[in-house]
Amino acid sequence: MDTETDVEELFGRMPFNDHLGVEMLEIDDGHAVGELGLSEKHSSSPDRMIVHGGVTYALADTVGGAAVISANEAVTPTIDMRIDYLAPATGGTLRAEATVVRNGNNVATVEVEIDDDGGREIAVARGTYKSGGGEGTTAWREAKRE
Amino acid sequence: MDTETDVEELFGRMPFNDHLGVEMLEIDDGHAVGELGLSEKHSSSPDRMIVHGGVTYALADTVGGAAVISANEAVTPTIDMRIDYLAPATGGTLRAEATVVRNGNNVATVEVEIDDDGGREIAVARGTYKSGGGEGTTAWREAKRE
Amino acid sequence: MDTETDVEELFGRMPFNDHLGVEMLEIDDGHAVGELGLSEKHSSSPDRMIVHGGVTYALADTVGGAAVISANEAVTPTIDMRIDYLAPATGGTLRAEATVVRNGNNVATVEVEIDDDGGREIAVARGTYKSGGGEGTTAWREAKRE
Amino acid sequence: MDTETDVEELFGRMPFNDHLGVEMLEIDDGHAVGELGLSEKHSSSPDRMIVHGGVTYALADTVGGAAVISANEAVTPTIDMRIDYLAPATGGTLRAEATVVRNGNNVATVEVEIDDDGGREIAVARGTYKSGGGEGTTAWREAKRE
Repeated sequence: MDTETDVEELFGRMPFNDHLGVEMLEIDDGHAVGELGLSEKHSSSPDRMIVHGGVTYALADTVGGAAVISANEAVTPTIDMRIDYLAPATGGTLRAEATVVRNGNNVATVEVEIDDDGGREIAVARGTYKSGGGEGTTAWREAKRE
Repeated sequence: MDTETDVEELFGRMPFNDHLGVEMLEIDDGHAVGELGLSEKHSSSPDRMIVHGGVTYALADTVGGAAVISANEAVTPTIDMRIDYLAPATGGTLRAEATVVRNGNNVATVEVEIDDDGGREIAVARGTYKSGGGEGTTAWREAKRE
Repeated sequence: MDTETDVEELFGRMPFNDHLGVEMLEIDDGHAVGELGLSEKHSSSPDRMIVHGGVTYALADTVGGAAVISANEAVTPTIDMRIDYLAPATGGTLRAEATVVRNGNNVATVEVEIDDDGGREIAVARGTYKSGGGEGTTAWREAKRE
Repeated sequence: MDTETDVEELFGRMPFNDHLGVEMLEIDDGHAVGELGLSEKHSSSPDRMIVHGGVTYALADTVGGAAVISANEAVTPTIDMRIDYLAPATGGTLRAEATVVRNGNNVATVEVEIDDDGGREIAVARGTYKSGGGEGTTAWREAKRE
């Protein structure tokens, strides 16, 4: 059985990711990539498509967390995150790429870049996550073992 | 016709707020309050209810934006926001309260507190929003005028 | 010997605090207060007195760290901090007050408010610090014991 | 007369930069580089050299501001900044490099990386600055014109 597939499926089974439409493409060794196909429900305006800032953030937080989990093989809650919006997203697919830039004993620091499919930078985010311990370790480890 | 009701309804008609379940209770004079009834779809875990950080953030960003809009009567996009998670939210209703702490010519600074209905502090957020200009002014002003 | 005095003196002996002019007034039980008398050297302009953002931040970081140390009796390095500037500081004395709003096993979250002596809010900051472990524990504990 | 030299000298004449020891090496077209030679006064410990977080931040804020100024030819106050500490700095020279990643009508977003002279990443910072207007324009424009 393909290990990678299981880990990415684990994220797809998280209810809010499913509700939002996040799809994880890569989760490995402190690095993760995820995508989100935009539709009307993601808009902050009833009149036109302009992505709600919470959509972009939720994608960043999810992909950032996946990067930390892959480096630590444990569930790693977000402690804090800052997002900076660089351009409005108006459609297509958002792609987020996250890299762990520091993986300490207690906490990890993650950098996330979110682009649209025209290659335009939509937002950047940086967050601090717990890097170890916590509950739920089993699901992750089992997914990796299968 | 009740002015307050129209403004809060305007937020409820925003597709992502509706998709998430955000309900605005108060929007006035640099201050806003909103709520979000939690259900399974908001969870980050398939096994138990633990709210995804993106849900809490989206509520904070929405209520923060409402507070800035009410102080400026114009659409005011988020420039950046930081959220700090203080306790996991596991059910019930999240309530967010936002206050504009600085309303400058170009940007506004907003403070948001998110509690659960047991009164426990779930998260705090602080963000910078544009404070004037932008498109969409009409909808807001018309809602206020009605 | 007065315990309080020793702890505050410990901060005054830190070389950069001394170089900057930070004076700690209270450090106790997750709460700390410090002051900084402004002079020409703190300015970002050669022509007039307008405090450099790094001065305000350094005061916030110092007082925030003191609050975390007092709750944990251990040296607690800053992991990340965000500062929002609300008004320019142009003279007199800056006063910073810090409160630990979450003191977890691994990290603490701290809120800091910085005012001038006219009572005007100059900046607000929020940071994440390690909450335990680390080196240098002895100096703090000895200062408390004396 | 060398234009570059004048602009960098302008930053060296700012009292707090001089007090801290910041030296600007490049300021041009939305990009800036500055250095800070570390000495005992920058330490947060009386016993050993470990750089105070406020020193690293002040360098980041200064170099970030220089990058924004160079893109706008106007004084551009910091609105907010977040810094994440990746490794302790224990001596030598800190080098900060800043790039404007978004330069809007009202605000600019800047990314700053701070390394030590062993090439180790010490911290990363991201901030929002005003991008136009403000006082003090003349000094900058005159320095560029000379």
